Amino acid sequence: MTDAEFGYVTPENLSLFTDRYELTMLQGYHAAGHEPRATFSLFFRDLPPDRGYVVAAGLEQVVDYVETLSFGERALDHLAERGFEADFLDRLADFEFSGELRALPEGTPVFPDEPLLEVTGPIFEAQLLETLLINQVAFQSLVATKAARMAEAVDRHGDDQSLVDFGSRRAHGTDAGMKAARAAYVGGVDGTSNVAAGEAFDLPTYGTMAHSWVQSFPSERASFEAFVEEYGDDSVLLVDTYDTVEGARLAMDVADEYDAKVGVRLDSGDLVALSTAVVDVVDGDIFVSSGIDEYKIARFLQEGGVATGFGPGTSLTTSRDAPSLDAVYKLVAVEEDGEMRPSMKLSAGKTTYPGAKSVRRIAGDDGPERDVLALRGEDGSGEELLVTVFADGERVYDLPGLDAIQDRTRERRRRLPHGCRDLRDPASYRVDVSDDLQAATDDLAAELRE
Amino acid sequence: MTDAEFGYVTPENLSLFTDRYELTMLQGYHAAGHEPRATFSLFFRDLPPDRGYVVAAGLEQVVDYVETLSFGERALDHLAERGFEADFLDRLADFEFSGELRALPEGTPVFPDEPLLEVTGPIFEAQLLETLLINQVAFQSLVATKAARMAEAVDRHGDDQSLVDFGSRRAHGTDAGMKAARAAYVGGVDGTSNVAAGEAFDLPTYGTMAHSWVQSFPSERASFEAFVEEYGDDSVLLVDTYDTVEGARLAMDVADEYDAKVGVRLDSGDLVALSTAVVDVVDGDIFVSSGIDEYKIARFLQEGGVATGFGPGTSLTTSRDAPSLDAVYKLVAVEEDGEMRPSMKLSAGKTTYPGAKSVRRIAGDDGPERDVLALRGEDGSGEELLVTVFADGERVYDLPGLDAIQDRTRERRRRLPHGCRDLRDPASYRVDVSDDLQAATDDLAAELRE
Repeated sequence: MTDAEFGYVTPENLSLFTDRYELTMLQGYHAAGHEPRATFSLFFRDLPPDRGYVVAAGLEQVVDYVETLSFGERALDHLAERGFEADFLDRLADFEFSGELRALPEGTPVFPDEPLLEVTGPIFEAQLLETLLINQVAFQSLVATKAARMAEAVDRHGDDQSLVDFGSRRAHGTDAGMKAARAAYVGGVDGTSNVAAGEAFDLPTYGTMAHSWVQSFPSERASFEAFVEEYGDDSVLLVDTYDTVEGARLAMDVADEYDAKVGVRLDSGDLVALSTAVVDVVDGDIFVSSGIDEYKIARFLQEGGVATGFGPGTSLTTSRDAPSLDAVYKLVAVEEDGEMRPSMKLSAGKTTYPGAKSVRRIAGDDGPERDVLALRGEDGSGEELLVTVFADGERVYDLPGLDAIQDRTRERRRRLPHGCRDLRDPASYRVDVSDDLQAATDDLAAELRE
Repeated sequence: MTDAEFGYVTPENLSLFTDRYELTMLQGYHAAGHEPRATFSLFFRDLPPDRGYVVAAGLEQVVDYVETLSFGERALDHLAERGFEADFLDRLADFEFSGELRALPEGTPVFPDEPLLEVTGPIFEAQLLETLLINQVAFQSLVATKAARMAEAVDRHGDDQSLVDFGSRRAHGTDAGMKAARAAYVGGVDGTSNVAAGEAFDLPTYGTMAHSWVQSFPSERASFEAFVEEYGDDSVLLVDTYDTVEGARLAMDVADEYDAKVGVRLDSGDLVALSTAVVDVVDGDIFVSSGIDEYKIARFLQEGGVATGFGPGTSLTTSRDAPSLDAVYKLVAVEEDGEMRPSMKLSAGKTTYPGAKSVRRIAGDDGPERDVLALRGEDGSGEELLVTVFADGERVYDLPGLDAIQDRTRERRRRLPHGCRDLRDPASYRVDVSDDLQAATDDLAAELRE
């Protein structure tokens, strides 16, 4: 009989959460005595469809990983079983990050080719971080972006409606449920249904009843009475199990009976028509769920739907219309003869800008107008967006709390040019490549093609 | 200074990985003394786009969850902080599943409205399982299906090429990376790049080098030499960093130098043209990555591309073209006056079939021809697909190993009607609703509409 296995990722096996090639390369660097310093950049090449910007998120998890990454007995035993060499494993046992990490603070809008993270250190260390860094940052950035778009839809068409993440069940596994709740908060939602995420990240949690509550009682009225009896003014009654408008009337009857101010939730049907029908009946919040995304929020509000809050689910936690960000982690500089030389590959369609970078955001009268992607250390105007998070292996950056990050996202989103915040076919935000970076790129490409 | 927090899900907080409404309902059931037995069905309403079937997966994680689910001190303390009542928390502290679970064995093709899981027990227990069961089963089933489609593409157009999951970095968090590796194996891939998944699920792991290996050396030749020196015949050299065909020639030079049989990997460019160009040069495996999915595999092979293996990544671990399965967990029967009465909701577009179910698969000469969805206990021909996994809280089902599950997937996929395995616009597989189930549905709907 096979024992059932959940497959947890914990501090005991997180170091193994890596692509095998990272470890074969590390063993190879070690065996060859090939130990240059190297700089890797984490960036994406293209914006996902209908995105005019991406919200950087996930740095806190990167910091935790870099600070705690180590290979314990369980990990080392497993690697020995899989054929890694004793001498290499001894070195892994002493693994500790001694390098530098620069990053965009969470909540910063970011554009193609701009590094979200830049790691400089011994190649043995910097190489290893690749898989987990992409895994955490790409996903959280996707979800933070999706949430920011929903906040944008409310800004443009609504009246400060609340947004609550209801999507843990459809997220891709448990970590996705946790991190989607966190990233959605970064992007602008007010809380989550996920209790574990509420605990881990100190987020507000919400939720009252499902259809099963209503169906499990002999009558809809009996189900509402039992709920309001227990929860009073905290009750949000799900009214669409049988007939939405009748359900809303019944909810108000029961509210009167218990002298409670109760809200209702609509979860199916023509939400605009139903919400305008129940608004005359309901004295309390009207919460709308069922397939909510930024497009549906905008349409609902434009068509006169009435709601005090929305509960996006699947579309939020899977970033359903754009479920992947093509984030990569590329070697951009490597030590040779004591100097850092810029590096790039020429692979068709996958060319990268060489060298450690600077990202400067240039302000106009109404907010940022363009960015300049430059070589690190170049002179130039504008706000340098990359901050140093680790130097010589020590953390030198205080992580802001989630509320501060959410504020940053909101503020920076609202200052972006209006057109690049459009939900469909947004305008492009201008990112210039500095003359020096372009020259370095052209020179290196020519040299490599010789 | 905020402490960095990774947000692990472990046995200490897995019980909190639930939507808050499950717990408010449980507290409400408890407070109201409303404790009927109930049956919940986990099913999906519609196949994702271009899918003719879904491969059921994730049961092992469901079993582990049901067997181990409990509320420890950390969870109870948190719930107390969030306002749950002491009396209710005392009861949660004693939580243990005492009910029944029926399920489709992993690797079974499944169609809309057919239960993948059916849980019967005290509503206090059965209700609570919802969030985690959907979270695990929907995602793994999506990925197993995606992998099965890639295996189908190889079956139809290829020559037994290997498939390796390369997508952990783009999976939605760590659990997604782990479970995607597992589910991809269920669906038919040969292994994964993810070392932690290899350890947890005893899967083969693969991987050799990234572009950073090549770039980090003073020359491509030096990088290949260092690798082959260390790994000999296990070397797969990435040859597209600068010029693919030149890189392949160089790889073979180095192979000769070390008298090793080395393979190559192509990761960019016109893969058909490059693979046919390097096949004349390369004496070893040709592994192809870069945006691989079932459509690209089929096209590559149809257009004469040459490869011994493929490394799908993002498209596999995010099920990119269909990143969500609309799986739901619905109350279908509830105890009243000592009898289980069928239950359904009438919500527009979300009607469900009431009652505990039977799923029978009817064979024709060449394999299954149609399914019959019926009320549990109805007479009928065909193979009953649902097996009993827990009875009275005790596990009564031996979980097969992953190799057996992979065999089941392959065998059952190959026996499905050819048209419903097409990668685009597949034919519909026929699922009949039994007369008794249809009559029960109509009668109950009429009664509820009165």
